[in-house]
Amino acid sequence: MNQLPLEQAPALDGQNTDIIIHGGWVITMNQPVQALAEHSVLITGNQVQAVLPREQAKNIAATTQIELPNHVLMPGLINSHGHAAMSLFRGMADDTPLDIWLNEHIWPAEGQWVSEEFVRDGAELAIAEMIRSGTTTFSDMYFFPNITAKVAQEAGIRAQLSFPIMDFPSAWGSGAEDYINKGMALRDEYKHSDTVNVIFGPHAPYTVATEALEKIATYAHELDCGIHIHTQETQAEVEQSLATFGQRPLERLNSIGLLGPKTQCVHLAAINEGDIQLLADTKSHAIHCPRSNMKLASGFCPSQALIDAGVNLAIGTDGAASNNGLDLFAELNTAALLAKVVSKNAAAVPDSAALTMATVNGAKALDFKDCGTLNAGAAADVIAIDLSAIEQQPIYDPISHLAYTGVANHVSHSWINGKAVMADRELLTLDQSSIVKRTAEWRRKIKAA
Amino acid sequence: MNQLPLEQAPALDGQNTDIIIHGGWVITMNQPVQALAEHSVLITGNQVQAVLPREQAKNIAATTQIELPNHVLMPGLINSHGHAAMSLFRGMADDTPLDIWLNEHIWPAEGQWVSEEFVRDGAELAIAEMIRSGTTTFSDMYFFPNITAKVAQEAGIRAQLSFPIMDFPSAWGSGAEDYINKGMALRDEYKHSDTVNVIFGPHAPYTVATEALEKIATYAHELDCGIHIHTQETQAEVEQSLATFGQRPLERLNSIGLLGPKTQCVHLAAINEGDIQLLADTKSHAIHCPRSNMKLASGFCPSQALIDAGVNLAIGTDGAASNNGLDLFAELNTAALLAKVVSKNAAAVPDSAALTMATVNGAKALDFKDCGTLNAGAAADVIAIDLSAIEQQPIYDPISHLAYTGVANHVSHSWINGKAVMADRELLTLDQSSIVKRTAEWRRKIKAA
Repeated sequence: MNQLPLEQAPALDGQNTDIIIHGGWVITMNQPVQALAEHSVLITGNQVQAVLPREQAKNIAATTQIELPNHVLMPGLINSHGHAAMSLFRGMADDTPLDIWLNEHIWPAEGQWVSEEFVRDGAELAIAEMIRSGTTTFSDMYFFPNITAKVAQEAGIRAQLSFPIMDFPSAWGSGAEDYINKGMALRDEYKHSDTVNVIFGPHAPYTVATEALEKIATYAHELDCGIHIHTQETQAEVEQSLATFGQRPLERLNSIGLLGPKTQCVHLAAINEGDIQLLADTKSHAIHCPRSNMKLASGFCPSQALIDAGVNLAIGTDGAASNNGLDLFAELNTAALLAKVVSKNAAAVPDSAALTMATVNGAKALDFKDCGTLNAGAAADVIAIDLSAIEQQPIYDPISHLAYTGVANHVSHSWINGKAVMADRELLTLDQSSIVKRTAEWRRKIKAA
Repeated sequence: MNQLPLEQAPALDGQNTDIIIHGGWVITMNQPVQALAEHSVLITGNQVQAVLPREQAKNIAATTQIELPNHVLMPGLINSHGHAAMSLFRGMADDTPLDIWLNEHIWPAEGQWVSEEFVRDGAELAIAEMIRSGTTTFSDMYFFPNITAKVAQEAGIRAQLSFPIMDFPSAWGSGAEDYINKGMALRDEYKHSDTVNVIFGPHAPYTVATEALEKIATYAHELDCGIHIHTQETQAEVEQSLATFGQRPLERLNSIGLLGPKTQCVHLAAINEGDIQLLADTKSHAIHCPRSNMKLASGFCPSQALIDAGVNLAIGTDGAASNNGLDLFAELNTAALLAKVVSKNAAAVPDSAALTMATVNGAKALDFKDCGTLNAGAAADVIAIDLSAIEQQPIYDPISHLAYTGVANHVSHSWINGKAVMADRELLTLDQSSIVKRTAEWRRKIKAA
């Protein structure tokens, strides 16, 4: 976009411009990643119309013009894995390993509390936090995905809902078949939506029987539908699979027909070279959740090795119950730092690669084809980050600061699908005080129990 | 402090109370760490007078009363390792390993730019960032420690200046003997200061000859003075020491007489069980800088193993050139997360231990005996953290949120030695706009070169 002259900007041919945002820098996320100083983003309808040098953009008429001279404009971040409603459990159980955390804390609490109201309030809390920290698309796997889909649509945030499938019952359903039926009906309901995509969410290889996994593989293939699954989060999971099935989880998923270019494998904190090759060969997507993997002592996902093998690597926060936040800038910062020490290479996952995981690669993994860049015609998912605080001085390179200084609280504006959802840090589609009040009520109830 | 009745609070006998801060919670950092709901901190002069339940405190007269009902009050954080002035190099060289980072980027830049003015402007930038993120005491090792000492005193922040000693010349001095002479004169100048402490700062075992290290050991012992030294930051440093001296760096320092209860060993990202035992046996202090160690791919400091061995473990950000910020809440968060995955134990370095590293243990390491807690008679170094943002809801346990959610930008108030240095995020002892302006001037000069 750098040298694109005004007369060549195809979107400007006879089209009105709705919004022009004049930034200090624009990062389109085209490769190689660069910060274009004094550039502007033009939006028409729900699309990016063009990115132009400010000097050209300032002569174009638009309904709204916004000056953000200290800000970076870039594509909104894509949080490729999470459990939004679990934000209501934030900080409820810390400093315990995955099995105890699940069996003694999270699953009992879910059994007691999860309901349509819980999911609505928790999803609103999560979406508010995500918008405030620069996320414009999130991936969710949780009970009552119908509720989360509705909340996401009302809040105007883009969402992939992977409806959960597992062998045991929950408040949402009785078991694998029931989950699949409900989920496929939900997928049908949103099939014409611009912003909500519903896919299969088998919870994990160890919580779904082979028969149900085979059914999911068949349906997903017929419908050309995505699959989102926790995979090889811990070494214990790998051992258990070897003992039970004689196969590593990824081998088993592959033999069932569940790996492929529509499949998103989450965590991968216990994988070897064979696993990496299998992901590469099948063109499956990998989703890295470094902070959750660290907190639960799950293991190290070899992120640079995955990238080197050609696997598309996206990034997610996981739920706030194991992170304990949904700040994707913090997540990509951790990813950049952790990759270096794990691979013993300080050049591993540089700033630009970390930002790519959270934009371009997330869009690929979640199959939101129009997202992840600011190319003309891309979805108008744009965020502005104010770099004028003390913590971001001096500015040699805005790309470095986005990856290595904590900028989430400096995200000032957000547009999703062309619509403003935050301005000057004020949420425009959610009632923040109501969210805080309802969250406090849940805390009182849960704590009293 | 929890049950201390008003009539037993010794500091209240006939003393005026200058400031009462009524918090939502007070965390005194006495062990076990707990959050006392609806408590208040009383300050008289430069000391904590008492921590009392709000119901008692509200009947006491004071010159200033401050209501912070959504806030945690706790001892200010202690950043036990850094290079303040290097904040002017923030983000100048990323994604390169320690040797290239030092040899090709940092040392040449320092050779070209370091001066009294550079150190003054860089230290002010760093101190502004540290106060804004909850630090009330910092440790510094850099050229022109006389300038940093002066800036710290003017800003009202507590500081340990370890004057740098190395074999090669710099803008500040000609070599080891010159650095030692200048440093000891500086120590003499500040010997009566409440807030500034000057100690020996031999840069590292590999940058100071044995003869100079021996001299430092002798002087430090005679003066009962602290020593701050980078130690075993990388495996390459260990190999080089074995090849040159036939000893691991810690063994060599010990045989020179440099280890002991006044010695602070920084990094320790390449240590084995023998090294840990040596630190424990000599009662040397360990300072953990996880984000810098990750970014430079230096290695993993086995923090939980150090704690288990009885070593006092403090924490520091290192300089902003290798982090890239001075947010000690982010640092202790990383320490808590990293310890778990490195030790394969999700209970390693729990929230309370991470906060203890940044308060109590820092005070011990830096020998600021009155700091690190809010006991009656402690130094009045107090910070307030607002927990009312969306990102901190719900609040089951404020201690968890301080460690696991990004709270640095919610530090609202800071008092150091009884004096307010920040109120409602406004810096009271530093001119923020002047700092930003001078920083931008340095960037222009350095970038143009």
